[in-house]
Amino acid sequence: MSLALTLKEIVARLGGEAVGEVAAPLTGVATLDSAGPDQIAFLANPKYRGRLATTRAGAVILGRGDRDAAKMPCIVCDNPYAYYARTVALFHPARAVRPGVHPTALVEKGARIGTGAEVGPYVVVGTGSSVGDGAVIGAHSVLGERVHVGTGTRLHARVTIYDGCSVGERCILHSGVVIGADGFGMARDAGQWVKIPQVGGVRIGNDVEVGANTTIDRGALDDTVIEDGVKLDNQIQVGHNSVIGAHTVIAGCTGISGSVTIGRDCMIGGGVGIVGHLAICDGVTISGFSFITKSITEPGTYTSGVPAMPHGEWLRNAVHLRHLDELARRVKKNTGDDRE
Amino acid sequence: MSLALTLKEIVARLGGEAVGEVAAPLTGVATLDSAGPDQIAFLANPKYRGRLATTRAGAVILGRGDRDAAKMPCIVCDNPYAYYARTVALFHPARAVRPGVHPTALVEKGARIGTGAEVGPYVVVGTGSSVGDGAVIGAHSVLGERVHVGTGTRLHARVTIYDGCSVGERCILHSGVVIGADGFGMARDAGQWVKIPQVGGVRIGNDVEVGANTTIDRGALDDTVIEDGVKLDNQIQVGHNSVIGAHTVIAGCTGISGSVTIGRDCMIGGGVGIVGHLAICDGVTISGFSFITKSITEPGTYTSGVPAMPHGEWLRNAVHLRHLDELARRVKKNTGDDRE
Amino acid sequence: MSLALTLKEIVARLGGEAVGEVAAPLTGVATLDSAGPDQIAFLANPKYRGRLATTRAGAVILGRGDRDAAKMPCIVCDNPYAYYARTVALFHPARAVRPGVHPTALVEKGARIGTGAEVGPYVVVGTGSSVGDGAVIGAHSVLGERVHVGTGTRLHARVTIYDGCSVGERCILHSGVVIGADGFGMARDAGQWVKIPQVGGVRIGNDVEVGANTTIDRGALDDTVIEDGVKLDNQIQVGHNSVIGAHTVIAGCTGISGSVTIGRDCMIGGGVGIVGHLAICDGVTISGFSFITKSITEPGTYTSGVPAMPHGEWLRNAVHLRHLDELARRVKKNTGDDRE
Repeated sequence: MSLALTLKEIVARLGGEAVGEVAAPLTGVATLDSAGPDQIAFLANPKYRGRLATTRAGAVILGRGDRDAAKMPCIVCDNPYAYYARTVALFHPARAVRPGVHPTALVEKGARIGTGAEVGPYVVVGTGSSVGDGAVIGAHSVLGERVHVGTGTRLHARVTIYDGCSVGERCILHSGVVIGADGFGMARDAGQWVKIPQVGGVRIGNDVEVGANTTIDRGALDDTVIEDGVKLDNQIQVGHNSVIGAHTVIAGCTGISGSVTIGRDCMIGGGVGIVGHLAICDGVTISGFSFITKSITEPGTYTSGVPAMPHGEWLRNAVHLRHLDELARRVKKNTGDDRE
Repeated sequence: MSLALTLKEIVARLGGEAVGEVAAPLTGVATLDSAGPDQIAFLANPKYRGRLATTRAGAVILGRGDRDAAKMPCIVCDNPYAYYARTVALFHPARAVRPGVHPTALVEKGARIGTGAEVGPYVVVGTGSSVGDGAVIGAHSVLGERVHVGTGTRLHARVTIYDGCSVGERCILHSGVVIGADGFGMARDAGQWVKIPQVGGVRIGNDVEVGANTTIDRGALDDTVIEDGVKLDNQIQVGHNSVIGAHTVIAGCTGISGSVTIGRDCMIGGGVGIVGHLAICDGVTISGFSFITKSITEPGTYTSGVPAMPHGEWLRNAVHLRHLDELARRVKKNTGDDRE
Repeated sequence: MSLALTLKEIVARLGGEAVGEVAAPLTGVATLDSAGPDQIAFLANPKYRGRLATTRAGAVILGRGDRDAAKMPCIVCDNPYAYYARTVALFHPARAVRPGVHPTALVEKGARIGTGAEVGPYVVVGTGSSVGDGAVIGAHSVLGERVHVGTGTRLHARVTIYDGCSVGERCILHSGVVIGADGFGMARDAGQWVKIPQVGGVRIGNDVEVGANTTIDRGALDDTVIEDGVKLDNQIQVGHNSVIGAHTVIAGCTGISGSVTIGRDCMIGGGVGIVGHLAICDGVTISGFSFITKSITEPGTYTSGVPAMPHGEWLRNAVHLRHLDELARRVKKNTGDDRE
């Protein structure tokens, strides 16, 4: 199904400079290690430069500094990794939208389906909801009432969006995503928990991607907000009233409690936990498996994951974690020193 | 869609004491920071008391001790946070049940749908199952065979309940919940894993809430049990044969292994891991991101999450975690002391 | 629904040696603690041997070394835990396949449904896909285009398999599983993220079990691979291009980043995090809640989870984690020693 393209044809569409030309059109993209003569590879990480000598790739995408490193035809560009992304998209265009509402889809009265939108089998669209032009609603997705899905947005199969939540334009929501379930709010009263109705919504900006089985809870009173360009991996939990700033990316299995404000252009690793009611400023990187217990006010990288070691070694060492305070006191006493 | 209510009307329904009265009926609830003159705010946390001076709220819910702190009309009550919860419910009553079985729902012969129950589009209800009076089964939910859903319980869209599992009365199960998938049990034999059929069930009590994409496995031989009033947040995993005691609350992304017994009235944070075959007594609080490796027999708070720090600092410090034992030995030697 | 069987009938089917015989046929399996006279219990863990004296079980499965420990009729075998697994399967055979395509299932033209396969209500099977002989596709499952599901494989309700992914024979996929969502790949360009189309697939071998709400992402260029006999618990995330070796088992809530290669016969605990681009050799055990930051080249057990302690104790001790380096320097200085 993929196209066949020469270097000239690629640079005509994506820019960059073609150095040399392939003998026969290329049929796809591959890594330096696995590419064959009919494929184009890419060099984005300098530590793989040595592989240029051994690759069987018919052509290579590389940065200006590597211009002379390749013996084969190549495309020279400013950002070879982004160029690689666009080249893959060129060879593998997204599945075309198939406009129309599947006969098994249930679109309630008062819901509006945009021009050229595709509504898949067994989809349910509630009253007062709207699906933007050219949007795709995958099979078995359920949109509650007063939901808005923006132009060109694509929901894969089995996405749920609760009442009153909105998703912007050109977003991608993967299978199993749940937008707008109730935030986890309750009040203790007489030995029982009283549910606090969650009457805020979820507002998702444009160009957001949400990974499989990720959940984003609706706000208690105000909305939970995901700003433009945010990319969320799979199985992330976003608590009620949190705000994730534009172009921030978050890797899988990370849990964000309620009322957390995360800035723009942050990079948050996988398996991270963030305590509620914190603020994280713009430009913060959080290493995978870290636990964030305080607000972060300075850009930079923050970390707390303890690397694994052989089990016996861990047993010998970890036992002292319960006695660090005593150890520190002894050392202080020893050094006759009261400095902390 | 919300109502308009005076303080008098609110206290007539929820109790408490109205001090003064609003000029015009209130239309909703908001935080002290965001409320306008037609909204009622609440003061539940003393650290926000200063905001009483600046809020634009038309009225405020507060505790007896704060009676004189407000200059505007207010409702004085014993538990302002619980009162806030009930006030929100007053302004935003739950969506009314729409009794009836949607024509696309498949209810197998021998299944019983209670009076006034709502069975949504594309729902599947298996043989021998029953849906209680006034219950709501959301679109695309799948109930296996011999499943019981109690009176007034509400399943949002896309919930799965496997064969033979039961859910009590007035429960709420959010989208993507899976009740009764097989527990993770297998026996090693000749270099392969033999599946142990999981023939226990899941029994969920009354007034339980289960968050989006949470999974509760069926027992191996006996049942997995969630007692009355338990509140589970999103993306929690409950292993087979575990028992969670009444009115215990658990925050998102927590993983509970198999055969764990958790007491009543516990509060377990998010991202916690609990090793299998442990018992945790009543009244235990576990901080977020903690790892529970032993049974807990005393009420109190337990913790192990390591707070993040700037990456360079962490690198300098974490390297010593592999040498704590050596460090401790040196200190002992130094102090001429063999005490642990 | 269960059968009634004598010891002779059990050993006739499963092997082992019957010592004595029950007075009346057994009707099921139970634990030593809960079994009644009409049930068979098992002793697989020597620490429960004392319970043989008190159990009310009608018969017991035990290992050759425990042959004389039981006073009641028993089955003696090499591997009592695996024997127990098979005995449960004998009493509780898997639900029989109900061959046929439900009238509400949508099977696209060009899709092939094998002999004796069961395709449940509201299932969607895309163009070019195939369902193997005797396979079961649970209600509401969605198979994209060019998906292959092998002979005898069973998908529970609400499983999604994206385009071009394949699942081998005799696999079990639980509810909420998502196979083949896009891997988390993007390139930074001019302050925004450019999506890298994920054009690899997912290949799952034979006899694999995948737990509820687990997600396995498709590869970027090459495939993500789950080899034969792998058992994955619930809510696991497998990143793009990772490879999980044959007969490896992984407990719930574990997150595996992209391009991780895990060997054969590994046992990985729950809540583990594995950083991307690592290799873990065959036969590795990783304790629950560990964080793997480097490749592992030697079999053995690896650990880093910090056990919880009373909160006050943790506060006193954890503060020193930020000062370990200083502590170590002082100790070195004290001992007049520069060894690390």
